Amino acid sequence: MGEMVEMSELGELMEYVKRVSDATNDTLERVLPAEAVYPPSIHKLMRYSSFAGGKRVRPCMVMAAYEACGGKFGDDKALKVAAAVEMLHTFSLIHDDLPCMDDDDFRRGKPTAHKAFNEALAVLGGDALCILAFEVLASVGRIDVISEIATALGTGGMIGGQVVDIESEGQKVDRATVEYIHMNKTAALIRASIRSGALLAGAAGDVLKNLSSYGNNVGLAFQVVDDILDEVSTTETLGKDAGSDLEKGKATWPSVVGIEKSKSYAQELIAKAWADIEFLGNKGKILKDLAEYIRVRIS
Amino acid sequence: MGEMVEMSELGELMEYVKRVSDATNDTLERVLPAEAVYPPSIHKLMRYSSFAGGKRVRPCMVMAAYEACGGKFGDDKALKVAAAVEMLHTFSLIHDDLPCMDDDDFRRGKPTAHKAFNEALAVLGGDALCILAFEVLASVGRIDVISEIATALGTGGMIGGQVVDIESEGQKVDRATVEYIHMNKTAALIRASIRSGALLAGAAGDVLKNLSSYGNNVGLAFQVVDDILDEVSTTETLGKDAGSDLEKGKATWPSVVGIEKSKSYAQELIAKAWADIEFLGNKGKILKDLAEYIRVRIS
Repeated sequence: MGEMVEMSELGELMEYVKRVSDATNDTLERVLPAEAVYPPSIHKLMRYSSFAGGKRVRPCMVMAAYEACGGKFGDDKALKVAAAVEMLHTFSLIHDDLPCMDDDDFRRGKPTAHKAFNEALAVLGGDALCILAFEVLASVGRIDVISEIATALGTGGMIGGQVVDIESEGQKVDRATVEYIHMNKTAALIRASIRSGALLAGAAGDVLKNLSSYGNNVGLAFQVVDDILDEVSTTETLGKDAGSDLEKGKATWPSVVGIEKSKSYAQELIAKAWADIEFLGNKGKILKDLAEYIRVRIS
Repeated sequence: MGEMVEMSELGELMEYVKRVSDATNDTLERVLPAEAVYPPSIHKLMRYSSFAGGKRVRPCMVMAAYEACGGKFGDDKALKVAAAVEMLHTFSLIHDDLPCMDDDDFRRGKPTAHKAFNEALAVLGGDALCILAFEVLASVGRIDVISEIATALGTGGMIGGQVVDIESEGQKVDRATVEYIHMNKTAALIRASIRSGALLAGAAGDVLKNLSSYGNNVGLAFQVVDDILDEVSTTETLGKDAGSDLEKGKATWPSVVGIEKSKSYAQELIAKAWADIEFLGNKGKILKDLAEYIRVRIS
């Protein structure tokens, strides 16, 4: 593996992220019902939240793993899976932001779904995005991918992480609990995105195993970096209430190990992620840069 | 078709409903994580709501259609689909009962999920049941069934019906709107349950088409009868707040056409449902009795 690179050297990656983002947006445009379709309110909400400026990290993971394992950029089935994981991520954010959960008024600089619409519609809009994601996944025709993603989302994955996240608020938590929350709430869907891209391209055995480990490491790093940024950024640069984790007594990395140790832990995780995909050689370039991109945000 | 029968003659059906109910409960017991599995709170909620005394109408529809089309009672794949549609129904009830939706404190004589636990856990528990249902459906391995059920649940089905139901509260609505709400909120999942059972047994073409029509007619009848019972029953016999539809200004059949016309409409729908499955002959006995069972509740 080479030396860690500077943001300026990530130009190729930025171009890749832009291409995936555009292709994902086109696919979402195609699979989401038009706003005018009856009943219009929920379709407006689904589109409002789906096009609210997300970075499309999970679609990038699907497509980069798909290509690394021999798939062709922009294949319809990979794009549909990319759109599905993004809808599932959006579903989780909408419900997470609800008054009974994190009670957040802003997300990516825009009012959250229940603020822009209302609570009932936000509950149902999240539900509908989750259901539509499975409908889109069914149209891809791969049982293994549906199973992979459903397992990563359930109480043994994302939802489990959300439960412990909510229940840990204001509690004194240990490092193992923070790791559980982040491994499940954040890393599970990122890992499933990577594995789904790989499965679509026909990957199996050790390739899948190494990519799973990469997914866990990158997913955890992503959340550690997010926690650090929440504590050190301003609301303006973050697009959501900065320092709100602290205010809510959330279980974060800085709260259990401090900012400096959180930074070195993120570096460590990225180094592990790089080692996981060394076997891919040049074919792993984008996955390598995606991991580096996460690190650069706190360097 | 014979004459409509009395409740006392539905003994065979009652025995069938009991068998399906027991088999569905066994399957739910098997697929739902144990209460002790971490994080326990959500698994407690999922089990609390799944075993809250539901009549298992949708599992009966799956199994009766499966058998009518040549399947064998109790086959594992049919039981899994039966458990999945019941989990999806439970998911919809949990979210429907939330304070921001129908704000119901009791369901089937027991405190609703957000009352017995809390709102955040009720949102996440509903989500988790929806996700687990798709995980269980994936384990059955039938893309067509996953697609059938996801389509019936989304904004062109159950969720769409819930949106219009909520938005019609306190409004003066016409018969077409009530029909839209009930066809989507209630009939869509009932129809999908019947079609899924039939698909599993290898049904296609006209058989599926007739069973779809049966599903729509029975599904609508079920809701018309529910609306009538809500207006004429006492809280004690109903297990939930009787007359609460009226109090909330819900769009119901009695509210647009009156009790008597609602009753004759239900009779008409059941007669249509019977005609839809006449082609099945004796193999359609249980489906016929299921339709009759719905009618008898208001006779």
